[in-house]
This record gives sequence, C-alpha cells and structure tokens, in this order.
Amino acid sequence: MAREGRRGGRAARREARGRAEIGMLPPLERRLPVYEILDEERLERLHDASMRILEETGIAFQDGEALALWRAAGAAVEEQRVRIPRALLLELVARAPSRFTLHARNPARSLEIGGNRTVFFPSYGSPFVRMFDGERRYGTLEDLAVFHKLAHLSPALHGTGAVTCEPVDLPVPRRHLHVTLSAIRHSDKVFMGPVTAPERAEDAVRMAGILFGEGFVAENPVMVSLVNCNSPLVWDGTMLGALRVYARAGQPVIVSPFTMAGANTPASVPATVAQLNAEALAGIAFAQLCRPGCPVIYGNFLAAVSMRSGAPMAGTGELALMNLMIGQLARRYGLPWRSSGMLTGSKITDAQAGYESAFNMLPILLAGCNLVMHSAGWTEAGLTVGLAKFMLDAEQMAMLHRLGQGPRFADFEAAVAAVAEVGPGGHFFGTAHTREHFEAAFFMAELFDNNSFEQWQAEGARDAAGRALEAARARLAAYEAPALEPAVAEALLAFVRKREEHLPEGGE
Amino acid sequence: MAREGRRGGRAARREARGRAEIGMLPPLERRLPVYEILDEERLERLHDASMRILEETGIAFQDGEALALWRAAGAAVEEQRVRIPRALLLELVARAPSRFTLHARNPARSLEIGGNRTVFFPSYGSPFVRMFDGERRYGTLEDLAVFHKLAHLSPALHGTGAVTCEPVDLPVPRRHLHVTLSAIRHSDKVFMGPVTAPERAEDAVRMAGILFGEGFVAENPVMVSLVNCNSPLVWDGTMLGALRVYARAGQPVIVSPFTMAGANTPASVPATVAQLNAEALAGIAFAQLCRPGCPVIYGNFLAAVSMRSGAPMAGTGELALMNLMIGQLARRYGLPWRSSGMLTGSKITDAQAGYESAFNMLPILLAGCNLVMHSAGWTEAGLTVGLAKFMLDAEQMAMLHRLGQGPRFADFEAAVAAVAEVGPGGHFFGTAHTREHFEAAFFMAELFDNNSFEQWQAEGARDAAGRALEAARARLAAYEAPALEPAVAEALLAFVRKREEHLPEGGE
Repeated sequence: MAREGRRGGRAARREARGRAEIGMLPPLERRLPVYEILDEERLERLHDASMRILEETGIAFQDGEALALWRAAGAAVEEQRVRIPRALLLELVARAPSRFTLHARNPARSLEIGGNRTVFFPSYGSPFVRMFDGERRYGTLEDLAVFHKLAHLSPALHGTGAVTCEPVDLPVPRRHLHVTLSAIRHSDKVFMGPVTAPERAEDAVRMAGILFGEGFVAENPVMVSLVNCNSPLVWDGTMLGALRVYARAGQPVIVSPFTMAGANTPASVPATVAQLNAEALAGIAFAQLCRPGCPVIYGNFLAAVSMRSGAPMAGTGELALMNLMIGQLARRYGLPWRSSGMLTGSKITDAQAGYESAFNMLPILLAGCNLVMHSAGWTEAGLTVGLAKFMLDAEQMAMLHRLGQGPRFADFEAAVAAVAEVGPGGHFFGTAHTREHFEAAFFMAELFDNNSFEQWQAEGARDAAGRALEAARARLAAYEAPALEPAVAEALLAFVRKREEHLPEGGE
Repeated sequence: MAREGRRGGRAARREARGRAEIGMLPPLERRLPVYEILDEERLERLHDASMRILEETGIAFQDGEALALWRAAGAAVEEQRVRIPRALLLELVARAPSRFTLHARNPARSLEIGGNRTVFFPSYGSPFVRMFDGERRYGTLEDLAVFHKLAHLSPALHGTGAVTCEPVDLPVPRRHLHVTLSAIRHSDKVFMGPVTAPERAEDAVRMAGILFGEGFVAENPVMVSLVNCNSPLVWDGTMLGALRVYARAGQPVIVSPFTMAGANTPASVPATVAQLNAEALAGIAFAQLCRPGCPVIYGNFLAAVSMRSGAPMAGTGELALMNLMIGQLARRYGLPWRSSGMLTGSKITDAQAGYESAFNMLPILLAGCNLVMHSAGWTEAGLTVGLAKFMLDAEQMAMLHRLGQGPRFADFEAAVAAVAEVGPGGHFFGTAHTREHFEAAFFMAELFDNNSFEQWQAEGARDAAGRALEAARARLAAYEAPALEPAVAEALLAFVRKREEHLPEGGE
C-alpha cells in the first residue's frame, strides 16, 4: 500500500497505538441477506422512469463549466437544462468504483466503503444543540469539539463527521477551517469535508494534504463530502463547485438528493424514488465527467412532508419503503449507497425520538446501506443535535452491528447439545457452553435500564436521556486526544491562520 | 356462512352498525415479500435439531391424561418424559389448519388468521399499571375497562385482548369471569380467553356460547387463548389443562414457549430457536391429539437475559434474528405465527421504550407474523402496562399497517408525469396528482410532534408521553359502548353471578 510504504515504521507504530486505544468496531460486514422489496419488473420500471425523466424532462445544472462538460459529452443542453440519453448516463455511472478504501489518519480506522460493508457516521449540519443543561441554543466550536470527541469515543461510529453542529460563534467564511481542524484534532477516524463553497472544499483538500501528505491524497480517498441536489431536478452552482473540487482531487463525494417527499417530489412512494434516482445518477455521472473513475457514493436524504403542517416526518412506513427501494437501485448500478439513519422530528430525546429513529434506521440496514449518516444525535428534523440522543443512538449502532452479522452457527451443535445436557425444567447458567459463550451471546445496551423497578427507583428513576447525559460526562472525562505529530498539528494551525488573513470576518 | 344463516337480519344490522362506528383497519394484507434470513440448508439444520431434541431428549408433559394420549399415539413415554418420533410429530402438526377465521361478535371485525395477514393485539398480563397520573400501582378492573375501551377505539388494534392488566382488586378464582365480561362488553373486537385453570377456560367457552350461541361456538373459532411452555421443555398441568379445554372446544390456542434466551435456553441464537421450535411443535402436536384439525397458532415470547443482572431485554439484534428465523420455521410447517411486538424493559414511556419497541417490532412484521401480541402498552418487561405507551404503540401499528401494504404502483405513471409537469425547481403542491393523492400518500402520526420548535414550545413543550395521555382522555370521553343485545348482556351477567357463588373469594 502506497501509504504504508511512504510512512514506514511510523505508520506501523501509529497503527499499533490505534488498536490499543478505545476499540472502534470494524466496518460491519453484513452477513444478512439484503431485503429485496421489488421484483425485477418493478425495479426496471423505476429505472426506466428515471431514465425517461433525464432524457425527456432533463435536469438543471446551474454552472457554466458543468454545462460545457455535458455538451462536450454529447448531452442535449438548452440554457441550464441538460437532457441526458440513458446510454451516456449509464456509461458514465459505470465508471464509478463499486467499492473503495476511505483512509483515516489512523490506518486501523480506515474504512472499506461498498459491497456488504456498513459504516455509521454521526449527525451533520444542525445549527442548534442541546448539551448538558438540555437547553436548545445555537452551537459553538466548543460544542462541536464535544461531538467530535464523543464520535472518537463511540465504538460503533466509524467516522468523526464534520459539522455535527454549526459553530455559529465563527464567521461563515472561516468556519470550515475550524470545523475541519476540530475533526482532525479530536479524532483519528475518517472525517468529512465542507461543501459551502468550492474554495472551502479546496482548503479542506489542502489540510488533508498536510495531514496525509499531498502525494497520498492525490492517490487515495482520505475524506468524504456531501453534496445535495436541490430537488426537484436542480444541481446548483455551489454544490457543483464543491463536487468538482473533490472529484478532481479524487476525494469521494456523496451525491444526495434532498427529498421532502410530497413537496419537492410527487405524492407517491415509487415516483419519489424514480425522481431522486434520476437526480442522484445525474450528479454521479457529472462527477465522472470531472474525473473518470473518481469514487462516489449514491446518496439520499429522505423525509416525508406532513399533509397538515408541511413539516418533515421521519420513521414512517413510506420512508421505509423508499429506503428499501433505493438500496436495491444502488445495487443495480453497482454503487456504494448512503442513507440517513436515526432521524426524528421530536424536539427532545423522548419516546417519539426513539420510535421514529428506530423505525427509520432498521430498513436502511436491511436494505444494505453502506454509509449511514445521521447515525447519532439528530433531533428536530436536524435543526438540533442533542447530546443525550447522540449517546443513545451511538450505542444502538453497536446493537445493529451485532444484528447485521447474522446468527452465529459456529457453535450450533455444542449449543444444541447443552439442551440435552440440561433437559426439561433446568436452567443453562451452569453448562460449559453457556459459561463459554454467555458474555458474547447477547448484546446489552449500557444506557438502557433493564433492572428491577425498585433498583431503577433507588437509582433516581431517571429516563434514558438523563442516563445518557451522565454517561457523556463520564466518557468525556476519560477522553484523550489521539496522538498527532506536533509538526503536522503546527502546520495545520499555520494553514488555518494564514487562510484566515484572507477571509472576511462576516458574510456568507 | 353458518353464523350469518343463523342470525339472519340481526347479524346484517349489526354488521352495518359496526362499519359505521370507528373504523377498524382490516387485518393487514401484507404485500411485502417476507424476509427470509436463512438459506434452505440452515433452515433444515434448525428443523433437524428440533426433531433430535424431541426424539432423543424428549419433553415433559406434567399431566396424566396428556401422557396417556401420547402413549396411545405411539410416542415413547417414560414417567413424565415424552420422546416423539419426527414422523409422528410432523403428521400431527400437519393436521393443524394453515389459516382460519376468528369471529368477533361484530362480524365486520372478524379476522383471517394466517397466510399473508397480520393482526395486532394489545399488551397482556401486567400486574401493574401507569394511568393518567403516571404512578405505578396494581391494576384494577376499572383500569382494565379503560384498556378494553381504548383497544376498541384504536383502529389498528384488531383484538380487545383480555388481561391487559390484572384486575388485582378481584380474587384470583373469580377474576377470569370479570376479565372476560369486560372484554365482551367494552368492545366488539375479538377477545382472548383465560388459561390459569382448565375450569376457568371452560367458563370462558360457556360465556362465548351465551354471546355467539353454543352451536356457533362448537363450529367456529370465536376467541383465542395463550398457553406458555415452561422452558426448557416442560408443559405443565395447568397449561395443558387449559389447552385441552380450548382444543376440544375447537377454539384456537397460541402455543408459546416463554423464552428467556441464555437462561432457559442455550447462549446461542440458533440453538435457542431450535429449542423453542421443539417446544412449540410438541404443544401443537398435543393439541392435535386432543382434537385433530383444531386451529392453533405457533407462538413465541422472546426476551434475552442480561449477562449482568439476569434481567430480560427486548429490542436487541439477537431477538430480531430469532424472530426472523421463527417466522421462517412457522411457514415451513404451514402454521399461523404469533410473536410479541412492542416490548421494552423501560419503566416509563421514554426514549428507551421507543427504541426497544420499534427495533423489536419491525423484524416481526418483515418476518411475516400473523398475530402480534403486546402491540400496545407494554413497559417494564411486561410488569407494567402504561396508558401513554398504549396510545403511542397503537398508533404506530397503524403506521406499520401502511408499511406492510408495500409501495403503491397503481398511480405510478401519473405520478411520474407530475415530475415532467413540475420540472426543475418547482414544487408539487399544485399538481393534479398531488391534490388527488396527498392525503393518502404519507402516514402521519397524530401523537408525534413534527411542528416547529416555536409551535411545540407554545403548546407546552410536552413529550410524546404527555401528548398521549391527553389523547387518551379525549378518546375515552368520546367512547360509546358497542351495542350488545340486552338479553345477552343479562345472561352473561347472570352466568358470572352464578359461577361466583361456587368460587372462593381468595386463593390462587
């Protein structure tokens, strides 16, 4: 591997250190069959509808360079509208790799993306936070550091993320620098890049260059970024600019329509999927125009719109159906797939948050999702990231990590023999098989209370959110920053300081 | 249909009335593919292990008449241990119908059990309640009436249940009479029968006779009852006595091992399933010895035991895997299948309750469960039934009812045409397709808050449990008892009074 060769013994030492620290669970290697909701005929109907949308209605690319690229590739371009023949589209989509390695600065935490692997990333993009006091307020860089530390300390989270909350205390033009620096400093897991402007994406690529070495970054994915399609059928200039920067740098982009089903899509489950499939594929094809073979992830963000208030909803049956269909489509195109896991509209970490998150998440796992964003912390339809929710969600990802591995048959005969050994009316605690396997056999959530009522009462009759906050406090007290070579840390800081000299203290 | 013939115009009038009242959703007709977690080879390994358990280890039947029946059928009986050759077992199991109609006193609420149908029944068997004041205390007959009324009023609950809470204010020997009377009076949905003693089961069959006519009851399933295997591998005299009464009366019994995985089964997911499969099949075969062809339901109650405290846990990955495997086994034997849905160990209706219930429930639906018990109200591992939880759960069953119907393709082309109509950058609220389909397109939970933070705050910043209690109050205020012919009501009451004369005021 290029990187190991370049860094030699130092990389090996870092790897050993990473493994000795808090264990990150490896990417989940799913051994459950993927749940195929559609038969071949319906899958092809969806595909065909998406192709017709792109061929006949077309899709807007609000960027001159993008339009020129499409024209050169043979698409029909009329003002900003691009109509893409399916042969061209599929030829471009086929250039994208079906799996790739996403490198972390700690090689033990690098991730295989695609195939039967699933990785979990925390919540992303909330302006508001609820921290220890439970009050809702704007997020700060200090809050963001807390989430980056907790992502580092959560075994089932495979990425640090990026803007888990917006650090609203920093001016927008400089914010991306500090977000990226915080992610790099506080965790050695994979981080995400900014997309709010092409030059900010360039800054992040340069910071990655300082961290990994520019040569390594030129050859290997070391960060992942999220661009959203402005549904229906608009790729705007900002997103295309960021996408182009990352694609040309060989850095993977999650190409995600932002779906509010019923508002910016039809009031139909399969037609919503047909539209978002068209949007995602058009973006993915464009990335391949920018740099053939660059890694991309087929993305989606899904909410359904309440008929009463227009508010986004999560965890409903229709969203489950959509996720199941999208997973099947992504596999049809041989692309890694990203979805959004622990979503809820609840303002707080109450029962609604639990129901909606779980009902939203499980279909995504069974549908074979490769990268699950918003796996921890999301509340209030993403407007607020909550500390309590973050802790509970992150632990549930560890539960799903077990589920996804499927039933273990390795010790099946020995376990069945224990039934004969115990016979009618006994219990199994004393058998050799139980003594050997009990601890590993059944997942237990530390943050859930399954003790007796009396014990729960004696311990303060707290709800899950209260226990989660206490656990967050304890975990943060034990936090140690993962080692970062001082020269690298200094170079990153110097880069940030220098860039800030050229960036305004206000504005968008 | 026998019953329609017997009751003529009266039944027709009742049917019309039933349909005009609060709409009960019909049994869910699943159009999603069942999720098959095991390949053929592993499914057969499980089956074979169950057969070996019954052939070699055997299972205890703690009842003289049962042992005599097994001996006469050709099983090897040694004291209370019965070893059942697989040919005999499978021949008996094959006698059970794969689907049957469970009649409600309102024919519009009768249920098809089996095949691709799923019905939801409320929680069952809790000694404690949490009602409007949120305090945990013993249940009473008055509390029970509240749950029976709410089951009646919940569109996605298909049965009234029975002992949603134990009416602890009544002496045990008389309790079953009042539980059954309450269920019959307060709802015209399907009810469940008592199993705490054979003579109590007989009382319930006689009450059903008063309600439906003895001739009708002799020919048709009109109630469903739950018997539990005392795992590992013990069918006790009480349960066998009740099972025998119902089987001989032609009334369906849910034959359910009570599994605390790791304690009364091996510390292994597939071996736990192999054991409970053996237990369920032995009970089902016994029912067929009592009355060949009598309707039965393959049942299971599943919890996993915490390695730390020995407490039961719900909603974990291992339980999901078990439910998926059990569903597949039940289909292999052509039997309707019952599982337990909205389980949680949480003492209250908090986030834990939401996560655990949802993660426990969804695999059960995808695995093709036919009768889901504990669909509403369960908290504290079943020790407490909660009013708030009942309301939230019951509404989520309506959500799953939508999920289970799968994606609707009927209007697919019209919906895709709306994408062309709107084009890039618009919204869909104005399209003809959206106007026609919006209301029905996306499920919205009335008890979940997806409004803005500001609106939520203005409305009192309540959590989901608080809103659920308010909704329960409003719903109960609008409750009207379903009509019951005065002569029938009087006859039922007279039966209860007369039986009470012969039953002690205390004891078990």
